[in-house]
Amino acid sequence: MQRAVRWYPPAYDIRVEAVPIPQIIDPDDAIVRVTLAGLCGSDLHIYRGHEDVDSDLTCGHEIVGEVVALGPSFHPQALGRPELYSTLRVGDKVVSPFTVSCGECHFCRIGFTCRCVHSCLFGIPTLPGGQAQFVRIPKAGGTLFSLSALQSPGTGLVNQDLSHLTESSLILLADILPTGVFAAMQALQHPKVAPMLTGKPYPFGGNVLAGTNPGQASAALQPEDRTLTIAVVGLGPVGICATISLLDILTSLESSQGLVYQVIAIDPLEARRKKMQAIYNVIDSAENGSGRFTVASIEDGKRLAADWTSGAGCNAVLEVVGNNSALTLAYEVVRPFGIISSVGVHQEPPLPFNGRDVYNKNVSFDFGRCPVRAMFPIAFDVLLKRQDVFGSVGTNSSLVEKVVPLDQAVEMYKLFDKGDCGKILFNPWI
Amino acid sequence: MQRAVRWYPPAYDIRVEAVPIPQIIDPDDAIVRVTLAGLCGSDLHIYRGHEDVDSDLTCGHEIVGEVVALGPSFHPQALGRPELYSTLRVGDKVVSPFTVSCGECHFCRIGFTCRCVHSCLFGIPTLPGGQAQFVRIPKAGGTLFSLSALQSPGTGLVNQDLSHLTESSLILLADILPTGVFAAMQALQHPKVAPMLTGKPYPFGGNVLAGTNPGQASAALQPEDRTLTIAVVGLGPVGICATISLLDILTSLESSQGLVYQVIAIDPLEARRKKMQAIYNVIDSAENGSGRFTVASIEDGKRLAADWTSGAGCNAVLEVVGNNSALTLAYEVVRPFGIISSVGVHQEPPLPFNGRDVYNKNVSFDFGRCPVRAMFPIAFDVLLKRQDVFGSVGTNSSLVEKVVPLDQAVEMYKLFDKGDCGKILFNPWI
Repeated sequence: MQRAVRWYPPAYDIRVEAVPIPQIIDPDDAIVRVTLAGLCGSDLHIYRGHEDVDSDLTCGHEIVGEVVALGPSFHPQALGRPELYSTLRVGDKVVSPFTVSCGECHFCRIGFTCRCVHSCLFGIPTLPGGQAQFVRIPKAGGTLFSLSALQSPGTGLVNQDLSHLTESSLILLADILPTGVFAAMQALQHPKVAPMLTGKPYPFGGNVLAGTNPGQASAALQPEDRTLTIAVVGLGPVGICATISLLDILTSLESSQGLVYQVIAIDPLEARRKKMQAIYNVIDSAENGSGRFTVASIEDGKRLAADWTSGAGCNAVLEVVGNNSALTLAYEVVRPFGIISSVGVHQEPPLPFNGRDVYNKNVSFDFGRCPVRAMFPIAFDVLLKRQDVFGSVGTNSSLVEKVVPLDQAVEMYKLFDKGDCGKILFNPWI
Repeated sequence: MQRAVRWYPPAYDIRVEAVPIPQIIDPDDAIVRVTLAGLCGSDLHIYRGHEDVDSDLTCGHEIVGEVVALGPSFHPQALGRPELYSTLRVGDKVVSPFTVSCGECHFCRIGFTCRCVHSCLFGIPTLPGGQAQFVRIPKAGGTLFSLSALQSPGTGLVNQDLSHLTESSLILLADILPTGVFAAMQALQHPKVAPMLTGKPYPFGGNVLAGTNPGQASAALQPEDRTLTIAVVGLGPVGICATISLLDILTSLESSQGLVYQVIAIDPLEARRKKMQAIYNVIDSAENGSGRFTVASIEDGKRLAADWTSGAGCNAVLEVVGNNSALTLAYEVVRPFGIISSVGVHQEPPLPFNGRDVYNKNVSFDFGRCPVRAMFPIAFDVLLKRQDVFGSVGTNSSLVEKVVPLDQAVEMYKLFDKGDCGKILFNPWI
């Protein structure tokens, strides 16, 4: 038997109980000994009874741990399958995204892993979650990311120096950091941003027809045309991860591509703005690009989006909230031909735009869930580079507030539900 | 004095009248002798009194002609300005897009010419349109596209063989062909389509971070992952142009990039489907790729979007109608992580989606008006290559139905308003 954090319907009923240790039930399974499990904002949807779940379950979908058992699919000759089927070993350190992805269906092969045909969320009645001592990982060769494999010679992967990587920072890979990276990448890879990145006018900076002669072009691009102004709407943990990732990618593009960037990070709550500013100060004192950055309230954000762009507005907005007031703010501060990269989890209200709004501004929107597993390599690069921010616990510039035993789960869910604490991690072995 | 097609408020009042020949009033102006002017679906918005215009005007915004006078800004030393200010000559053959674009503001320089800060539509009370013998073109060095310059040595442009180019086909450059190209390009340049085009999983096929090692990837892409299935919703003249452009670009990508394509062109009206099929037959008998193509009713389109993709749906949908039933159909047939490229002119109804719809399907949308002037080079390539389709008048595979004198304007507006004829061009000199 093992200890686990359990939820009972209809709502607000958390118990720490003894349940059976999970076993291999499918050849593609791995059993992972959980070393850290996160408490995430979306755990509260179930906690509050908002998800129409009517049976009890083991909570949690952010998982870091160590492989203790592997199904028979894992062996050195598992060729033609995702490479972890032939390289993963008992004892390897792993991170699991919050959903299962097989790595083998069409959606996984092309990198849209959150729409895997076998997709399944951890922490629902049919798939016990990670706030426990052990967890079963289905389709583990596709789902898991192995830290050990990064250091093994002969795997075809880059050898990474992981000596400075903290255990607690790894939990951010399970959901929030890749989601932040995704928000930034959707904006930066959009063809409407290509003129600022490449110095070539639309549509010639894109992937397709990049070589075509524009002929009888407008005046040449001026240095000020290369300025890329991006707003982030929402500075919860995902919004902070999006901002850090965005700054990191922009700093590298600044040196390689010659653009100039401006980032406006917006949130109505002062506590969130203070956290964002404290984190930026850590980054800024370490190394940073020469771009402009500010943290702003909603009113200040609107004003700066105009002031910093001669009234044009932002080239892109990362919407990391998931409600209509955030989408409306994003529309207000984006310029004509701008992009709204929305990773907020939107609910049932209709979108707050009419056809004329979006036609007249030539707005582009990207909506939806992050393909976490596909974003791991980029997110991992950011995690390694930004250990100054992600590596700490409990300081005013930490994303993780504290690490607690499973026994404190009842109290921690209550605190977290009231917004009285930051990100909590469970260590099931203390 | 000259003859011109004039509209009077409140509605349905067209008169062919004598009005003064326009003169240079700004140094950047050109006066163009109109050789052909189009009657466009959007002329009907004014015709029917739907645009809240309360004074009379000269109609028309699709213009082909010959330069007869140039303002003092045009001279060989107009350096640092758009190149036509130093190369355009009296006597040159030109096409004008339906809006003015200066070629010099930030939006023009980066290719978003339809959002030029000097943007102005031809055929409104303050800017007389092209259904006349002469028309004044503001900011002409930015606005016009010169056919003559393409053939002049020493301009830095490719010398093009224009001997087979018909006069009537040029009018398609003013609006509908670039808009069709834009619809196709928005879809094909979107990063969510990159895996199919490049064979690299998302997000590594895009412009940014293209070289990053994906590490511990899913299974390798299979040949079937490279199949790109695109639906076109709406087969009016712009939808037909979008389909032809899409097929043309896909055929070239098929040979250079190794993808396989499938195109489903959908319209509820049989007459439009027949026209599309007749045009495809002309293309197909000339040269074509090996991709799959079909014309379909709405019900057939839905069925084929599922059947041709093992139930996944289309990678992208070009929405070329501009109403909510077209957007809803686009959403129905697009797959998770798909793109809806909407160039339809949408009006005031709210968008027909709620937040959960778009989040759960990871849908991307691109909305808005085509930057026609910026799309000219690509559209011109398609126009030259596809003279077999665009070059004819009055056959069952022609986009242009007939060329008539201005005197027939009253009757032609009536016919066109009833949907009793295809595209009409005016020749003001017959």
